[in-house]
Amino acid sequence: MKLFESELKVVNIGLESFMQGFSDSGVKAVQAQFKPPLSAETALFVKTARYAARIDAANKKALARVLEAKPALVGMGIALDVIPGMKKDLILHAGPPITWDRMCGPMRGAVIGALMYEGMAKDFREAEKLAASGKIKYEPCHEHNAVGPMAGIISASMPVFIVKNEAAGNYAYATQNEGLGKVLRYGAYSPEVIERLKWMESVMYPALKTAIEFLGRIDLKTMVAQALHMGDEVHNRNRAGTSLFYRAIAPAVIRTARDPETAAKVLDFINGNDHFFLNLSMALSKASLDAGRGVKDSSLVVVMARNGTDFGVQLSGTGGKWFTGPAPIPDALYFPGYTKADANPDIGDSAITETNGLGGFATAAAPAIVQFVGGTSADALTYTLTMYEITVGENNMYKIPSLDFRGTPTGIDVIKAAKKGILPFIDTGVAHKNAGVGQVGAGVLSAPPEPFAKAFEYFARNLK
Amino acid sequence: MKLFESELKVVNIGLESFMQGFSDSGVKAVQAQFKPPLSAETALFVKTARYAARIDAANKKALARVLEAKPALVGMGIALDVIPGMKKDLILHAGPPITWDRMCGPMRGAVIGALMYEGMAKDFREAEKLAASGKIKYEPCHEHNAVGPMAGIISASMPVFIVKNEAAGNYAYATQNEGLGKVLRYGAYSPEVIERLKWMESVMYPALKTAIEFLGRIDLKTMVAQALHMGDEVHNRNRAGTSLFYRAIAPAVIRTARDPETAAKVLDFINGNDHFFLNLSMALSKASLDAGRGVKDSSLVVVMARNGTDFGVQLSGTGGKWFTGPAPIPDALYFPGYTKADANPDIGDSAITETNGLGGFATAAAPAIVQFVGGTSADALTYTLTMYEITVGENNMYKIPSLDFRGTPTGIDVIKAAKKGILPFIDTGVAHKNAGVGQVGAGVLSAPPEPFAKAFEYFARNLK
Repeated sequence: MKLFESELKVVNIGLESFMQGFSDSGVKAVQAQFKPPLSAETALFVKTARYAARIDAANKKALARVLEAKPALVGMGIALDVIPGMKKDLILHAGPPITWDRMCGPMRGAVIGALMYEGMAKDFREAEKLAASGKIKYEPCHEHNAVGPMAGIISASMPVFIVKNEAAGNYAYATQNEGLGKVLRYGAYSPEVIERLKWMESVMYPALKTAIEFLGRIDLKTMVAQALHMGDEVHNRNRAGTSLFYRAIAPAVIRTARDPETAAKVLDFINGNDHFFLNLSMALSKASLDAGRGVKDSSLVVVMARNGTDFGVQLSGTGGKWFTGPAPIPDALYFPGYTKADANPDIGDSAITETNGLGGFATAAAPAIVQFVGGTSADALTYTLTMYEITVGENNMYKIPSLDFRGTPTGIDVIKAAKKGILPFIDTGVAHKNAGVGQVGAGVLSAPPEPFAKAFEYFARNLK
Repeated sequence: MKLFESELKVVNIGLESFMQGFSDSGVKAVQAQFKPPLSAETALFVKTARYAARIDAANKKALARVLEAKPALVGMGIALDVIPGMKKDLILHAGPPITWDRMCGPMRGAVIGALMYEGMAKDFREAEKLAASGKIKYEPCHEHNAVGPMAGIISASMPVFIVKNEAAGNYAYATQNEGLGKVLRYGAYSPEVIERLKWMESVMYPALKTAIEFLGRIDLKTMVAQALHMGDEVHNRNRAGTSLFYRAIAPAVIRTARDPETAAKVLDFINGNDHFFLNLSMALSKASLDAGRGVKDSSLVVVMARNGTDFGVQLSGTGGKWFTGPAPIPDALYFPGYTKADANPDIGDSAITETNGLGGFATAAAPAIVQFVGGTSADALTYTLTMYEITVGENNMYKIPSLDFRGTPTGIDVIKAAKKGILPFIDTGVAHKNAGVGQVGAGVLSAPPEPFAKAFEYFARNLK
């Protein structure tokens, strides 16, 4: 009887909606911030606990390689000439492997645009037919040391940046960023899109290539470290990174361009596009994370990538195997005239920045990103602080001023994510679900549980 | 008796050292954050309270003019040609008026350098003699619509930026920033200093002048607003401002420079000097605050400036009158080999940024500034939050991401400062106290009480 006579103090575990009932009836209650594990296979958690020392050592080793990476921009080239395994009839795309029939609208749009850009089709109809004919091969950028934002399409004659991890010697590749509005990476393929790509190939590429050769190399790691002190998280906000890159390259562009007007036009283009640096921060992240691959018993996530249909994950200790699940639709600020109903599920290799401790993991450095979708600067701090829960360590170079220059949470441990039920927080752009439209918003999301649950279970099951 | 039997709970007002005794003897005590008023003339506080409504209205009016200012870079010219009242035998300096015999070492060094730069003296000895001869006149930059960092020396043939407040039509002038190391503004006058100034006059100035003419105008207000979102407070940290200015001007420099190599050299110079934007943020602040001058009954501070000997203040409602007191020596991070014993008292017109709600008032936007002298990001927030205590309003353009984009505290009310005993917080560079040495550190300080006490008392006494 005593229990029923005493004051009720409730700890609510699970659905937060139960809290309303307690507060309505004047009962004191707190919500436990409990999240169920991603996997119901309890035995696998027990197993990974048994192997903890070995896994810890492997994760530290893998993360050390990521942190020791020295990614520098060392050159540019045409995809066919420089990307390993690139072929004329091959199109690289964002995310895990996918066939034409399962591709989302914006990725189809970008493939169509690329086939016209390559001169392999003269119009939409021809391009669509060719794309579906089986004559074109599709493979993930990630399987060719490359990364691409949004649809992430790289075709044979596209110019790419060459980023070298000067510590381990591996390379990463990414295209030049096209800017905002109607652009290929969001699935647009109108004549203005193709014309811009042609200008980027014939005018901007030679100018930047020569300027980079003139400089020898551009240290991207220091640039990203600086950009984090300047309000960027180098995923959805790249204004500082773009500014620093611009400052570094402008005098070289002037000294080497075929004429001053060309130099001015190239710099105008970069100045007009605050996201120019994104593709470089992605290539930097790819070059860093690839160095952490292949460490036996490491549960470190080395890839998170989306093709607009599936969200895929790879781990250091499980080789080239992809773990996938449906890509979610982001919470976003939609451009006027668009709603979530227009949005394509999450797409792009740009989550490689989060995998590298940047982007959503560094929102505390860039509160503007969160404010953009109605959050506060406290939310921005919370997102970053939460990510420390699932990461192997803290970054030694990328630091957050508002956290007294604490290193960003870096290196997702799939075991921690699975056990705590905490999913990586990702900043993202949103593409229209139909081909040919383009960007409709920008926002944030948590990664979906399925790929992480599968990755954890596979990793744990195969421990021996 | 009851009083002595009950538990002791102490509120300690005044000396914080008393707190130790309480905690040693286990007595609960809190420290009241009480600061005595700056003035002992209690009757004057009563008087300003009686006039509160009128003063409030005047301060709102003055601040509105400051906030409505639209400072844009509209051109460049030679000081003699463009600065009102400039003459060949006149040297403008930072801070309130001062004679040669009272000038500090670094200001004397800069005057000596300027006389050699002008070709009026061939060496140090000749220059020093001329400087003290009475043939050279000295007047504050501030009395000629100009501002100068540190020694703030402007001589007749120096090129200056022309900043126009497009709302009120008034102008402000500032020299081009020389960079760090041995530079005139820190009192250095060696041949390398004079050579650099000559290059800035003969190469950089024509290139920038032509580029600005080509562009028509450069909106500085938006640039500062952006820079605050990018980790600058545009006083001791100007990396973002410099980057944004560089991006804006580079294509125009290329299109108009006499040859590509000149364009590249000019951009190299700006790229090599993260403080290049400082002189522009100062001129922007001067152009904004001058618009708030001359409002009857306004206790708004429109100038804080130091000549390295005196710290001077002017108010909107008290015309051109200076209120001065000894300039303090800043707490600083000293460069290797130097200590506070080498430091000159605070110097420069750059506190015009704080007067405009930037610099020390915006440290929350730039925690790196505070960390530099051993503080934390929490300290950076506290400095900004404290300044809201003594300001008339919040900025409508300059906003702080980590405070959910709250406007910076803007427009010091000398009555609030005097009543609450809270002094403006200022970021600063530190010059060696001897002529010819240069910078020895950078740091932070609170403005000294005397100028504010005098300004308050004069203002209050003359209210009628």
